[in-house]
Amino acid sequence: MSRYTLQGTSGKARRGSFVTRAGVFDTPTFMPVGTRGSVKGVDVERLAELGAQVMLVNTYHLWLRPGHERVKAVGGIHTFTGWKGPILSDSGGYQVFSLKSIRTLTEEGIEFRSHIDGSKQFLSPEGSINVQQTLGVSIAMALDECPASTLDHSAYERSLEMTYRWAKRSLAARTDPEMCLFGITQGGCHRDLRTRAAEQICGLPFDGLAIGGLSVGEPKGAMYETLSSHVDELDRERIHYLMGVGTPEDIIEAVSHGVDIFDCVMPTRSGRFGRVFVDDDPPFFNVKNAKYAEDTGPLDPKCSCVACRTYSRAYINHLFKVGEMLGPQLASIHNLTHYLSFMREIRQSIETGTFDAVYSRIKARWQGLDLHASGNQV
Amino acid sequence: MSRYTLQGTSGKARRGSFVTRAGVFDTPTFMPVGTRGSVKGVDVERLAELGAQVMLVNTYHLWLRPGHERVKAVGGIHTFTGWKGPILSDSGGYQVFSLKSIRTLTEEGIEFRSHIDGSKQFLSPEGSINVQQTLGVSIAMALDECPASTLDHSAYERSLEMTYRWAKRSLAARTDPEMCLFGITQGGCHRDLRTRAAEQICGLPFDGLAIGGLSVGEPKGAMYETLSSHVDELDRERIHYLMGVGTPEDIIEAVSHGVDIFDCVMPTRSGRFGRVFVDDDPPFFNVKNAKYAEDTGPLDPKCSCVACRTYSRAYINHLFKVGEMLGPQLASIHNLTHYLSFMREIRQSIETGTFDAVYSRIKARWQGLDLHASGNQV
Repeated sequence: MSRYTLQGTSGKARRGSFVTRAGVFDTPTFMPVGTRGSVKGVDVERLAELGAQVMLVNTYHLWLRPGHERVKAVGGIHTFTGWKGPILSDSGGYQVFSLKSIRTLTEEGIEFRSHIDGSKQFLSPEGSINVQQTLGVSIAMALDECPASTLDHSAYERSLEMTYRWAKRSLAARTDPEMCLFGITQGGCHRDLRTRAAEQICGLPFDGLAIGGLSVGEPKGAMYETLSSHVDELDRERIHYLMGVGTPEDIIEAVSHGVDIFDCVMPTRSGRFGRVFVDDDPPFFNVKNAKYAEDTGPLDPKCSCVACRTYSRAYINHLFKVGEMLGPQLASIHNLTHYLSFMREIRQSIETGTFDAVYSRIKARWQGLDLHASGNQV
Repeated sequence: MSRYTLQGTSGKARRGSFVTRAGVFDTPTFMPVGTRGSVKGVDVERLAELGAQVMLVNTYHLWLRPGHERVKAVGGIHTFTGWKGPILSDSGGYQVFSLKSIRTLTEEGIEFRSHIDGSKQFLSPEGSINVQQTLGVSIAMALDECPASTLDHSAYERSLEMTYRWAKRSLAARTDPEMCLFGITQGGCHRDLRTRAAEQICGLPFDGLAIGGLSVGEPKGAMYETLSSHVDELDRERIHYLMGVGTPEDIIEAVSHGVDIFDCVMPTRSGRFGRVFVDDDPPFFNVKNAKYAEDTGPLDPKCSCVACRTYSRAYINHLFKVGEMLGPQLASIHNLTHYLSFMREIRQSIETGTFDAVYSRIKARWQGLDLHASGNQV
């Protein structure tokens, strides 16, 4: 029986829910990123207040510090982070592949040096599952290879075959049947490889299907084109997760093709640098800009988060200018509220058959805007 | 009519209340410090939740950035900071006297260079009142000279006389009768000068009486001895404010001599460095210490703040170790909660005549401990 329940559609957009041992969540949903076990600047009570249902944590970071065994010793990831709802962890692969330091990739796994102390470490499919299982997450991800986007087709193909073998090893390594495990398709923007990856991964008994290797620096148009055919290739009975994405435009585009879950550091990372997302045209601005120094309005008049109901743009501009940590905190809370309210609006619009109107509004606002240039996945 | 109402005593400890145009507050009270218009890491909704009644802001910092005229332009200090309750501002003098850069002191005022851009600035009693009045605070402080503690008696005496003249100029400069104005006694630990300062300042129609020039590096014993005679010299009909103090021990000691209001950066600054205050013996510890890395208990089992009801010492230790901003946030919130709960306990103990028991408990715990060494005023 699938843990995913499809409750309704509007075109290819899907309204559903997903069951984990830590609770049920509604889809489409956005997962705030708690890289090292903390969504930067936001405590878990606030996180729940602003509508988050699932938190993402990074296996790589928690594995190195404080260590998965220590997290287990103090009661597991839910007790440790204080987040009682579902927690999804990535496999650690993306961070390891992003390391500038020497790493060696073999069939067995990846040897690399810790960015903290330079110590030699080894990440294998089995090791990744062990770390995630020891942390006690609700949803684990299989280790995949994230190839450089400059690879040629045949190199991509070899990578895909290894990712397939790793996917099977990951499934075999799971010993806790209550921990969900998602498989990941790769293949970059090569249509034939995406199709093959979908066949391979859908052929395995994963609890969910994730799309990896997008929003990693390729043009926005290439990502959208890949999504337009690739999501259809995924099993409709299972949940669809687009990893590391993205802007509100990316999200509405992906939902329109049938994606159910998203994660991205964009709301918090942008917030720390003063960029705030608003339900307006244009859809974002930087509150550090001098023109907001005497602006008595809230960040977004349509928002009811603590930043918007309490403070002016002028005050938040001041906080950033003088380097007060409350500035990044408030902008992060606002951006997460914006994202999570947006997901709620998307869910409601699918329920009421008005998804097209939301889609058109967002696409019109983002016309000509692109935050992708430097990639937005971490 | 005095804005201060004495409601009861226990020995020399006083239970009272004070009326401002922004509301009434209960005394003894502790004011969290919002240096640049923000209590570091704590939004005003949380600040109210944890029991704060009055916020302090620093005139020097707000004058330079964003500027008092700008604060007025966007609605005044209450609208700007979001804190609707009483706000007290200092005169700016303490920061200017702390500047390492060149400053010139004359009868007229102090010429100094901004620590931000090196620009020449001038602070006079009238200028300070103007800035505070323009900010729109509930309680302003008169500009005083804060002499170096190494001055000899005659130099101190000259300084005191100028502070007296400045006090009269400050009163004359106030044009908004609804803004409270407090005078300040100086005199270091010279008993005769403290007596003279009390006579001078109490002879003027200030709304409150503040004790300056303590907790600025002198030994704890010298401060306590000065308090033991000096507070008695202050008019009993008016409120007594001990500026920039201090540790819980300092506070209980000062309350025992009749002090009503306190402010200090200690709970937030200590918190940012991992030091947490607890209702226990010993009364503080540093959560960054490796021995807390697997401690599943809360910071303080007797505390109900968001940090204590949600997170373990192990988690907060981890946050500090990896440099997550949530660590300083949680420790600051906890320490402020500790201070404000302590003030509530003090108020209740005066009401019920059990102040002595609280006093003895705190003094016993702090026996031999001293956080004064480097001074704790900012």
